Amino acid sequence: MSASFIALDWGTTRLRGWLIAPDGSVQDAISSDEGIQVVEAGGFAALLRARLAPWLARDAAVPIWMAGMVGSRNGWIEVPYVSTPCSAADLRRGALRHELDGHDVWLVPGVSTRSDDGFFDVMRGEETLALGAGVSEGLICQPGTHSKWIEMRDGVIVSFATFITGEIYAAMSASFIARLAATPENPEPGAREGRIAAQARGGVLRGLFQARARVLDGALPAASVKPFISSLLVAEEMAGARQLYGSRLPTLIAAPPHDGLYAAALGAGVGVVNPQHALLEGLKRIRAAA
Amino acid sequence: MSASFIALDWGTTRLRGWLIAPDGSVQDAISSDEGIQVVEAGGFAALLRARLAPWLARDAAVPIWMAGMVGSRNGWIEVPYVSTPCSAADLRRGALRHELDGHDVWLVPGVSTRSDDGFFDVMRGEETLALGAGVSEGLICQPGTHSKWIEMRDGVIVSFATFITGEIYAAMSASFIARLAATPENPEPGAREGRIAAQARGGVLRGLFQARARVLDGALPAASVKPFISSLLVAEEMAGARQLYGSRLPTLIAAPPHDGLYAAALGAGVGVVNPQHALLEGLKRIRAAA
Repeated sequence: MSASFIALDWGTTRLRGWLIAPDGSVQDAISSDEGIQVVEAGGFAALLRARLAPWLARDAAVPIWMAGMVGSRNGWIEVPYVSTPCSAADLRRGALRHELDGHDVWLVPGVSTRSDDGFFDVMRGEETLALGAGVSEGLICQPGTHSKWIEMRDGVIVSFATFITGEIYAAMSASFIARLAATPENPEPGAREGRIAAQARGGVLRGLFQARARVLDGALPAASVKPFISSLLVAEEMAGARQLYGSRLPTLIAAPPHDGLYAAALGAGVGVVNPQHALLEGLKRIRAAA
Repeated sequence: MSASFIALDWGTTRLRGWLIAPDGSVQDAISSDEGIQVVEAGGFAALLRARLAPWLARDAAVPIWMAGMVGSRNGWIEVPYVSTPCSAADLRRGALRHELDGHDVWLVPGVSTRSDDGFFDVMRGEETLALGAGVSEGLICQPGTHSKWIEMRDGVIVSFATFITGEIYAAMSASFIARLAATPENPEPGAREGRIAAQARGGVLRGLFQARARVLDGALPAASVKPFISSLLVAEEMAGARQLYGSRLPTLIAAPPHDGLYAAALGAGVGVVNPQHALLEGLKRIRAAA
């Protein structure tokens, strides 16, 4: 049976691939921790050949479409950013075509934006999920190491902003305030304290010290330190996003544990799209764009 | 020649000591990286005996006064916090007396506070410097891993707040945005960009990503990433402190590199007190308090 295309999400820490049937369904899938950070320069083609061998052998013409950091300066081939406003057709035109043993390999470009306050911003991978989320008007929030808030208008990415919520959380988890903290069975009490602390005066640098002070005070169990920190940081991200985009509710593209954490912060009624679904729909849409 | 007392600043990462003459001058000094984090439980007395042997031998009665994390749960002997409002006499009354080979050893307590928004806060060591800074009315700022803003009224510590500016900076320096960045010869261009970015909408989690985006944009030299991050974080601390204490200018207790960084953020006219001076004056004042 011939396939329609191979979809790849090749990011910093993971390589994930799907063999897509002509009817759009997933025929097969792979996943590994061979993100671009562990691939040596010059090693991308060989790794791809090895991991995709059965799929490539079945169909000598099947093309490969990939999104993510594989197109960055530290990836396989650097693909220049496309600037906002950016449609599926713009990404299609900006995609870089390469060749691997007779197969067309397409690398989707990242997107850059410049906001009216002079901030420059970039993303690689999230643009593809945004176009596959089924949101033509409104906001999209993609939590992660670098959370992206993306504004869609008439199916086009018009602006976006990055918040380094996940990077700060990871750094704090390794730092001494949270280093020894366990992960609690029930994160909600700590999360609730974190959301309350986020409301107080003094900003996030003051709020974060409460992760230590409230434990000394007996008000926060030591096991609740990590949910306290994560919910405080998410609340800080929400407050920042509201300054940029107002109080409109975004659509979340998120899987566990981010979906629950962000849904709790955004409140009931928020729509959640599965990231894998959004990626595959996004690649199909970019491929099909004129 | 007999001494008046031995002053110790025994913190998490450093042990520093001074032999103080009856006229208040420093006769001798020691310094090592034997902070409490490297001292095994039960090893404090032996370490002190070894490091202070020449001073203790010269004067069989000289007392030892110490401030800092040595009085914490992870230190030598835990000394309960004294709560605000807190004077030199309150710290004198709260000090814990121990005995080492016939010498009186006094451990100055830390201070706790509870602000009207329900935040609990603690410090150990900074209270002693605050009382020795010569500020009887007004604000004091002590930059560090955990920056302290301390409000003095009539010579008494009435409230304070902690900002984890230094901890976040250290965590960011080890994290991937800044991991590979060099330290520039001239930090000012990066610092200026950081102060500007701190003014923009979206908060500090958005601002910090600019350390990466502006390098990609060519607007920020890669070597300026660390001064960009540090000045952005200091600006965030300042904004938080203004929310708590208004726009009053604090007195800085700081040594390089914090003094220059914070003075640049606070503007011309800020008073700077040397930390060693403040510590010794603070211990003298607590010792002498009725």
